Amino acid sequence: LVGSGGEAINKELFVLESPEGDAIAMRFDLTVPFARIVAQYSEKIKLPFRRYHIGPVFRADKPGPGRFRQFTQFDIDAAGSDSPAADAEIVAAMAEALGSLGLRGEDGAPQFRIRVNDRKLVDALLQGCGIEREAKQKHILRVVDKLQKIGLEEIVKELGAGRIDASGDPITGVGLDKGTIDRIVGFISVKGADRRDVLKSVGEVLPKSETSEAAIAEMEELRGALDALGVSEAEAVFDPSLARGLDYYTGPIFEADLPGAPEFGSIMGGGRYDGLVTRFLDRKIPATGASIGLDRLMAVLGALGKIEAPSTVTQVLVVKMKGMAAGDLLGLTRELRAEGIAAEVYLGEANASMKTQMSYANAKGIPVAVILGPDELANGTVAVKDLIAGKMKREAIEDHEAYKNSGRVSQVTVPRGEMVEAARKMLAGE
Amino acid sequence: LVGSGGEAINKELFVLESPEGDAIAMRFDLTVPFARIVAQYSEKIKLPFRRYHIGPVFRADKPGPGRFRQFTQFDIDAAGSDSPAADAEIVAAMAEALGSLGLRGEDGAPQFRIRVNDRKLVDALLQGCGIEREAKQKHILRVVDKLQKIGLEEIVKELGAGRIDASGDPITGVGLDKGTIDRIVGFISVKGADRRDVLKSVGEVLPKSETSEAAIAEMEELRGALDALGVSEAEAVFDPSLARGLDYYTGPIFEADLPGAPEFGSIMGGGRYDGLVTRFLDRKIPATGASIGLDRLMAVLGALGKIEAPSTVTQVLVVKMKGMAAGDLLGLTRELRAEGIAAEVYLGEANASMKTQMSYANAKGIPVAVILGPDELANGTVAVKDLIAGKMKREAIEDHEAYKNSGRVSQVTVPRGEMVEAARKMLAGE
Repeated sequence: LVGSGGEAINKELFVLESPEGDAIAMRFDLTVPFARIVAQYSEKIKLPFRRYHIGPVFRADKPGPGRFRQFTQFDIDAAGSDSPAADAEIVAAMAEALGSLGLRGEDGAPQFRIRVNDRKLVDALLQGCGIEREAKQKHILRVVDKLQKIGLEEIVKELGAGRIDASGDPITGVGLDKGTIDRIVGFISVKGADRRDVLKSVGEVLPKSETSEAAIAEMEELRGALDALGVSEAEAVFDPSLARGLDYYTGPIFEADLPGAPEFGSIMGGGRYDGLVTRFLDRKIPATGASIGLDRLMAVLGALGKIEAPSTVTQVLVVKMKGMAAGDLLGLTRELRAEGIAAEVYLGEANASMKTQMSYANAKGIPVAVILGPDELANGTVAVKDLIAGKMKREAIEDHEAYKNSGRVSQVTVPRGEMVEAARKMLAGE
Repeated sequence: LVGSGGEAINKELFVLESPEGDAIAMRFDLTVPFARIVAQYSEKIKLPFRRYHIGPVFRADKPGPGRFRQFTQFDIDAAGSDSPAADAEIVAAMAEALGSLGLRGEDGAPQFRIRVNDRKLVDALLQGCGIEREAKQKHILRVVDKLQKIGLEEIVKELGAGRIDASGDPITGVGLDKGTIDRIVGFISVKGADRRDVLKSVGEVLPKSETSEAAIAEMEELRGALDALGVSEAEAVFDPSLARGLDYYTGPIFEADLPGAPEFGSIMGGGRYDGLVTRFLDRKIPATGASIGLDRLMAVLGALGKIEAPSTVTQVLVVKMKGMAAGDLLGLTRELRAEGIAAEVYLGEANASMKTQMSYANAKGIPVAVILGPDELANGTVAVKDLIAGKMKREAIEDHEAYKNSGRVSQVTVPRGEMVEAARKMLAGE
């Protein structure tokens, strides 16, 4: 079995057998399936076609922190447009998504940075250097892709004769001559004050040719579109060193990371793949898009303190008293829930002591308890306990003033019909 | 490799190999993984523990309408409670979920029906009939499980000597004698006006024993809890013929279908599985829960007209005029989007005619178009077209009055700064 996404993808496919005995594979990403859908329904879909998709994907990769063999991807893609404006819209949507998720400082400045490059620029560079063989071009791309990980010095060695990696193993080099390496290094080292500035410098280091002029014109259009869409210079930077691992990219490519936390690596990536749909259809349908790995993004947001998992959702615990059937108490939770208060009867061991039940409430952070025992049942009342006030009271030996000043009462007994109101007051801290 | 969920599950596992060469399988359901989590974190989780979970599951099953090899399951489960009140809460939550999704008639009556039974009742029946061998018990359960599909007459044959199925193949029977078959048929045929009534009749047909008394007491508690939670008799019925295919159920079992549309089959199922956690842990933690297969449910809701996929989300199409770069037009969509109006520039073929673009808007149901061509640019204006009014005008030859009375104008030219307001008015049909 060979997949349709290229070599780098085939290496990480989970392959298995269908009940009919066919070789099948788990979905690796949402991009190749999108290309398949566009090809399969090319007569029905009105182009340009945009869609978003969230779903699980599977990679036979080494697991690590924030790196799983099954994870959830979020993709946006547009098929049927070869305009760089479509690429700019993908970048703008991703910038807005990452910003909306909280990846902004207090001053509103983005904590993420989307690096943008164009495979056509790289093609123009390599053609200008006389490197035409596809395998060699891919090898160079793979080496350049390691820049952020191993640094420029090691890249220079690997483009040449080779290098020794951190574990002492020799890595075979591409075998380029010094002149070619200098041109590549000159290209991938281009920096600038803004996107316009980077593009100007790229124009200066690229060998002049039709290919390079077309590539620069495309980037210029992309630049104008990013400006028109209000994507700030801090949100998206032009960076000629961006390579992206996959084979199928043909134009603009994008990748987001966190400059303040490079250890998280890439949190969004994508690009233009004008040749992918034609692997399934005998006409060309251009496409562009990007993906976010939601699990890694959640790990990043968690580590940056941008999200907090709620410790509990229950607000009222109905205590299971001796002599009462759980069923007798469910009516109380029903009343509370009808008024929008999350409530549960303690349904653990049938004879659990009050202490066990209070420990449960404490562990789950449940703030209020309701007690309906045989005595209350006879009197037509219920007791409503403020567990936070109760805790303050127990601690009041040390801090008597705080408890007194809080004005909270640790327990009230009210007529059965006033339970919801009493619980609501306690939850509001009244 | 043998999974932990039992034989019926093992048959439908997708088995594959991990990169390390271990035999692994795709997740079959969310129940067995929940039992694993409860076992693995039994020291950390405060019991009772409730959770919901949505995720993909995989079954090497025959695909069919609404039946996929990968589908999304929604599960709710509670571990650590052996109280029938916990089962009742699962049933109540499912009834509320199905009702909230629109499965109610105009009078509020449920269109779904949750059938409820208890494996302990079935155990008591079979024990009372002297059937103690587990394989035979399972065989009988599998036969009874077919009741809705093949009818009582065929069940009677299959419990006895056997039957010939619809395709003419002989099906081996369980080989029970007539007396035993009559008792089983008497049990699974019990009907009643309400849950209390069914339970009373079950008590009359069940052989008297400690097991049957305990089972009826459990169902009685479940009945009280369902009443207390306000689950109506129409929402949940007691039905002794419900068997459920899986081995791991030990107590109450539930399954929902649509009495008005039995062809959809089961849309929710679950039950108590007190023995599952102990397959991974050397102490018993009781548990109960239920699952909804979201894909099939969506198919059902779609077929019943309960959901409608929006044909488009774009409200304004910015037309790409000759002589204008797409980038020049993105600023317009940015302004519209900033005001909450979904807008897109036409990014299809660069030289698409106005006709092509209007056909695109028509196919996607986009109601308003904005035109900024070289003329408008020079004048500082934009044209805003009401595509619905335009269509009415074209059709006005037949229905001139309708167009005139609509008060709609098919196109206005406004200063550039008034575009958003003009578009908003047209969208509101003013």
